[in-house]
Amino acid sequence: QSSVTVYGKIDAGYSDRKAEGTSGTEAKGKSIAFNAHETSRWGVRGTEDLGGGLKANFVIETQLGDDNSNSAATLQGTLPVNDEALGGRALWAGVSGGFGEVRVGYQNAFSKDYVAGFSASGGSNVIGDPTMAAGRAVEKTARLGLLDSRYTAVSYASPAMSGFTVKAMIVSDKQDSDNTTAAKKDAKGQEFALQYAQGPFAAAVAYGSYEVSGVLPTVGNMSVTLADSALVHEQDLMSIYASYDLGVAKLFAKYGNVESKQKGGSATTDGEATSTVVGVRVPVGNATFIANYATGDYESLAGTTKYDDSGYQLGLEYALSKRTKLYGIYGKTDTDITATTKEKDSQVAFGLIHNF
Amino acid sequence: QSSVTVYGKIDAGYSDRKAEGTSGTEAKGKSIAFNAHETSRWGVRGTEDLGGGLKANFVIETQLGDDNSNSAATLQGTLPVNDEALGGRALWAGVSGGFGEVRVGYQNAFSKDYVAGFSASGGSNVIGDPTMAAGRAVEKTARLGLLDSRYTAVSYASPAMSGFTVKAMIVSDKQDSDNTTAAKKDAKGQEFALQYAQGPFAAAVAYGSYEVSGVLPTVGNMSVTLADSALVHEQDLMSIYASYDLGVAKLFAKYGNVESKQKGGSATTDGEATSTVVGVRVPVGNATFIANYATGDYESLAGTTKYDDSGYQLGLEYALSKRTKLYGIYGKTDTDITATTKEKDSQVAFGLIHNF
Amino acid sequence: QSSVTVYGKIDAGYSDRKAEGTSGTEAKGKSIAFNAHETSRWGVRGTEDLGGGLKANFVIETQLGDDNSNSAATLQGTLPVNDEALGGRALWAGVSGGFGEVRVGYQNAFSKDYVAGFSASGGSNVIGDPTMAAGRAVEKTARLGLLDSRYTAVSYASPAMSGFTVKAMIVSDKQDSDNTTAAKKDAKGQEFALQYAQGPFAAAVAYGSYEVSGVLPTVGNMSVTLADSALVHEQDLMSIYASYDLGVAKLFAKYGNVESKQKGGSATTDGEATSTVVGVRVPVGNATFIANYATGDYESLAGTTKYDDSGYQLGLEYALSKRTKLYGIYGKTDTDITATTKEKDSQVAFGLIHNF
Repeated sequence: QSSVTVYGKIDAGYSDRKAEGTSGTEAKGKSIAFNAHETSRWGVRGTEDLGGGLKANFVIETQLGDDNSNSAATLQGTLPVNDEALGGRALWAGVSGGFGEVRVGYQNAFSKDYVAGFSASGGSNVIGDPTMAAGRAVEKTARLGLLDSRYTAVSYASPAMSGFTVKAMIVSDKQDSDNTTAAKKDAKGQEFALQYAQGPFAAAVAYGSYEVSGVLPTVGNMSVTLADSALVHEQDLMSIYASYDLGVAKLFAKYGNVESKQKGGSATTDGEATSTVVGVRVPVGNATFIANYATGDYESLAGTTKYDDSGYQLGLEYALSKRTKLYGIYGKTDTDITATTKEKDSQVAFGLIHNF
Repeated sequence: QSSVTVYGKIDAGYSDRKAEGTSGTEAKGKSIAFNAHETSRWGVRGTEDLGGGLKANFVIETQLGDDNSNSAATLQGTLPVNDEALGGRALWAGVSGGFGEVRVGYQNAFSKDYVAGFSASGGSNVIGDPTMAAGRAVEKTARLGLLDSRYTAVSYASPAMSGFTVKAMIVSDKQDSDNTTAAKKDAKGQEFALQYAQGPFAAAVAYGSYEVSGVLPTVGNMSVTLADSALVHEQDLMSIYASYDLGVAKLFAKYGNVESKQKGGSATTDGEATSTVVGVRVPVGNATFIANYATGDYESLAGTTKYDDSGYQLGLEYALSKRTKLYGIYGKTDTDITATTKEKDSQVAFGLIHNF
Repeated sequence: QSSVTVYGKIDAGYSDRKAEGTSGTEAKGKSIAFNAHETSRWGVRGTEDLGGGLKANFVIETQLGDDNSNSAATLQGTLPVNDEALGGRALWAGVSGGFGEVRVGYQNAFSKDYVAGFSASGGSNVIGDPTMAAGRAVEKTARLGLLDSRYTAVSYASPAMSGFTVKAMIVSDKQDSDNTTAAKKDAKGQEFALQYAQGPFAAAVAYGSYEVSGVLPTVGNMSVTLADSALVHEQDLMSIYASYDLGVAKLFAKYGNVESKQKGGSATTDGEATSTVVGVRVPVGNATFIANYATGDYESLAGTTKYDDSGYQLGLEYALSKRTKLYGIYGKTDTDITATTKEKDSQVAFGLIHNF
């Protein structure tokens, strides 16, 4: 029993978001809110020594704050399905040793971890980064975009060798929301990653290939709402990540490309999306300044639908301790749709984050 | 990690309730049940020393027993929405120090804590006290009544000065039940409180002022179902609490008044409600006798609808230890509706309560 | 606080099930899955010393893995209602001492514990044992069958006397799924058990008698979908269990009979069901071979509907430690329906189980 640790995070603060739609329509949501910057969670994890250098490991991690309907994600209409179920963020068991680590169960795609890990804002939930959840505005459902994702999967990570780690994941995931929406998806595929970390430099490459079907498939760190739910779609994901710590500042960059094709046909909503984000963190005493700049685009296979994004995030974190900090962050995304329509989406949030 | 504490309470026993309605109709519910007297819960809380006299604090508290559909509240048809979600009772982080304490997140209104804290029955869930949940019988939905409530809010409590503590809370709460009912509400407002505790005497005053809209708004420790859900209602709450410990007995009193007015109009369901409860706890060895007497009334703004309540609770608690006790409690409420209809509601419950 | 223990189990692996229906129809479900063999759970339990040889005890236990929609149970369409709610597997408090133990709250029927405890496969969730959940195929809803069950109940267990323990349980359970299905049931009744354990031999007898009503009543370790939901049904359950540890192998046997009669009438779906399961566990070093053979039958009161089952399970467990093991298991059930229709249902599963 000694190996079981209870841990978690609470992000509580204030969020004010405003989205200006196609023809001057506006949507606003502001409230004292959870999860505007980071994602509140509660978890239990543990390790058992199996002898011979082997360990058994497990994680049960659950999202917090959304069922109070005052999470920033709810206010944005981007609430993920079932994350609040016990173990809805992560639920896996595995074995690690000299050979590396195997995990079986519900876990992050490699690209999801990289998207947050190689972000100047730590993968902030505020508007401005198209590779994060807040990039999925409801009015852009037809567009592909880099997106965080969790699967039932078997994953393998090698031990680090001269700074290099090789990873592979086999996904076989059926999801069926038993709530009001009839969201079903079936994803099969695999993801591979190579990551490097040595001294101030870190980098990673992730490649994923999936076959998905259903009403609301979410694949790799990509998402697409398929108009033709009965069909199977082949999706390919490639993403690259890097960071360099100069000491006075830490630089970040990530690039992702995702392509979706209907298997044996041509769905009009399928297409190709690309996102690029660069950022910097500048520590000054207990404070850290954060800046991110992002661009993204999408083009349907038929070429009839195009989106062009540009966004940024500007933030300030102030550490009260290693586990507790205050934050204020602003983000904005401008989108051109098929060269005729412009949308603006902005959010300001401030609050307190406590890790335990 | 050392600061994280797992705690909770289980109230399991038997509840038998009978409500006699307007024209001789009866509703009965009896079963081995949870939460008849106190409310079962499970929580994680912790404290981190930030240095300089400052501490970071958090609570994640979740209600238990309702999803088994055998809670006394379910049998009474008064089940609160989403309390069983992880963190559905309380989910906040904050900082405390010489300046007092600030909490941000989902937390009790001050008046909710006082309603239970200044009650001879500890705010028992059984019938008989119109300021508690069981006072909200389904047949009286048109009536205002003091009611426990939780919000997303920022609260401040001063340090105790000569026994006095000043409190202030800013509420900005959007709620949207994602279950079968389309319950939505939007509450903005503030609550202020002054409390005093010195030797055997304790007292508190709470004042709240809110603007609410939606199908099922719950404001301060007040509740009202609005017939005109699109409108905004201004609600004012004033309540007073006192207790005095004579040694051989401890005396309790609470008084609350709540008024709701449609902003720029006159909704027929809006009105004014007043509740008064007095009680006594008499310890005899390991046993404690409990008695509460309550009166309440409601009058709609138009004067066409009137309710007159009187109720009481008689109970006995027997302590097996500081953390574990047995209880038996009986409660009854008689209601006169618009001077023509009489309703009777009674409940007997006994069980075991274990705190951990 | 020192008495509170966090514990649990994760079963993560792969499940592949195929059901061949009445007229050649097939249903298939395969995925990386939870709970194919054992049932993942997370719990908090504790004990308080009350003095005088008395202890207060509690359990809060919650099922894991189903809300990710990748549990083997979900893939089989046999997901229980509300098990994933906090405390949905067990939620009780009680007192133990020289007199034995009393538990009040949501807990297992005695027969449920025996069904798993006297099984060579530990009550595996895979196909092949009609007394376990996977025996309830959707296509056989009209049939009675032994089934695991939990109730709100008061239970008593005597201390062991010369190896004998006497148990009694009073059930008063109202269930009302607040999800999409309108499943309601009301069960009242009692269960009695006598169990014996001395040296290598263990045995138990359980008898239950219930009155149930509702759409989806589940009584004792029996289940029946009633066509006439407004009626009350009397159900009697008798089951016998035994095991003997030869050292080189451990033998298991269980037998159960359940009869359901409409009170004051004759519902066509009511009837009588019988199940018999024998099995063996053979330990070889860290490995354990498992074999189970089962037969079952059902006949409606009118004699017009008959089911004849035969099934088996073959498995291998390999212990990495006392708490962690790998498993592979295959199960199959063949069913003859009213002597004219044949159904086949099979499942293969392998995975990792970690207890913490």
